[in-house]
Amino acid sequence: MGLTVHGDICSPFVKIAAMTIYEKNEDFELVFARLSLLKTEEFLAKNPFGRMPVLEDGDLVVFESRAVARYVEAKFEGQGTPLMPANLKEQALVNIWAEVESQSFCPPVWAICSQFLSKKVPDVSVIEASREKLEKVLDIYEIQLSKRKYLAGDFFSLADLFHIPLLHILQCLSEDIFRSVINSRTYVHKWHQDITNRPSWKRIISVPEASDWSFLPKV
Amino acid sequence: MGLTVHGDICSPFVKIAAMTIYEKNEDFELVFARLSLLKTEEFLAKNPFGRMPVLEDGDLVVFESRAVARYVEAKFEGQGTPLMPANLKEQALVNIWAEVESQSFCPPVWAICSQFLSKKVPDVSVIEASREKLEKVLDIYEIQLSKRKYLAGDFFSLADLFHIPLLHILQCLSEDIFRSVINSRTYVHKWHQDITNRPSWKRIISVPEASDWSFLPKV
Repeated sequence: MGLTVHGDICSPFVKIAAMTIYEKNEDFELVFARLSLLKTEEFLAKNPFGRMPVLEDGDLVVFESRAVARYVEAKFEGQGTPLMPANLKEQALVNIWAEVESQSFCPPVWAICSQFLSKKVPDVSVIEASREKLEKVLDIYEIQLSKRKYLAGDFFSLADLFHIPLLHILQCLSEDIFRSVINSRTYVHKWHQDITNRPSWKRIISVPEASDWSFLPKV
Repeated sequence: MGLTVHGDICSPFVKIAAMTIYEKNEDFELVFARLSLLKTEEFLAKNPFGRMPVLEDGDLVVFESRAVARYVEAKFEGQGTPLMPANLKEQALVNIWAEVESQSFCPPVWAICSQFLSKKVPDVSVIEASREKLEKVLDIYEIQLSKRKYLAGDFFSLADLFHIPLLHILQCLSEDIFRSVINSRTYVHKWHQDITNRPSWKRIISVPEASDWSFLPKV
């Protein structure tokens, strides 16, 4: 029995699950669940928080995209791309930068995206404050990436992968400013080009629904 | 050479590092770093984000409390309390609830605490909105904990441990309402009593500085 992912591939968090599975040379059945279906009893029985993705593997149900990715990596250890090194020190470095993504990178980026995703008029002060936070975070990334090819070392890992879908939304927003926060930084730009050039990511964005930005302003 | 933790034990995130080390029957040297010292060049060289705790183990430097905890658990695997099961399915459950803590529990609790920590007059609308979010999250915890003793199963794990220091602050705020969000829920209350009864936690709060709430309103 194979893996099943419930969700909509337009979601950046569903993309994290999908990309991890592809990196391990595995595949999955996508059971389409649009945003409006997440609060149904059937979906809430799988994830009481009503969020996508949900991964089903036999009788195991895993939610929270980063937990899904960790499970897939552990289940297919030794297969495809190693996304979490066996070495304890390297593992610690991956966990540091995975936490940095979760605590410092994701919140301002998600705040920016939410302003555009929401049907209300975007709140310029929220966007501006979030952009300032993001620039400070990326200044630290720039220094880190000037010393090593990827965030945790000279190897691609979950820490890099977790960033890709939200970086993609930033690149797709109509405002140049969000592309330039990436492209104006030499090493961040190089890293971004490298990690988005992976076959697993290209496969995801080759699906038209993955770039369904109808809920975003014109791109 | 032993473990060194840089930080102030009054911080909930330093407490996460300390409790994990104690659960593994290990000890550490605490190098006191108050909030105002986090932006010094010396500290930023250890953690460019200028946040505590920072763990040093020989030449390895680990920051982000949850990454520190994962490192300590992996380094002392098979010693003290097992905080991350070897079994893949149980590991996935721990990772799910660790992510829930990080994404759904921590943000509203930290928003409440920040309002009281800040020197400004607390913003009642932020506190109220955060309390509402927290209540919804704890409603889900109540159902989860009615079916199993701890969040990920019938075993104590990192997923439970990550909650303890912030739960402690909620209990210490002067407003009854924050104690009652815990105590009004049968299974959450029982779980809270159980996990705060652990010797590792009692050892931490036995240090007077750990309960230095001078930055909080009267308790």
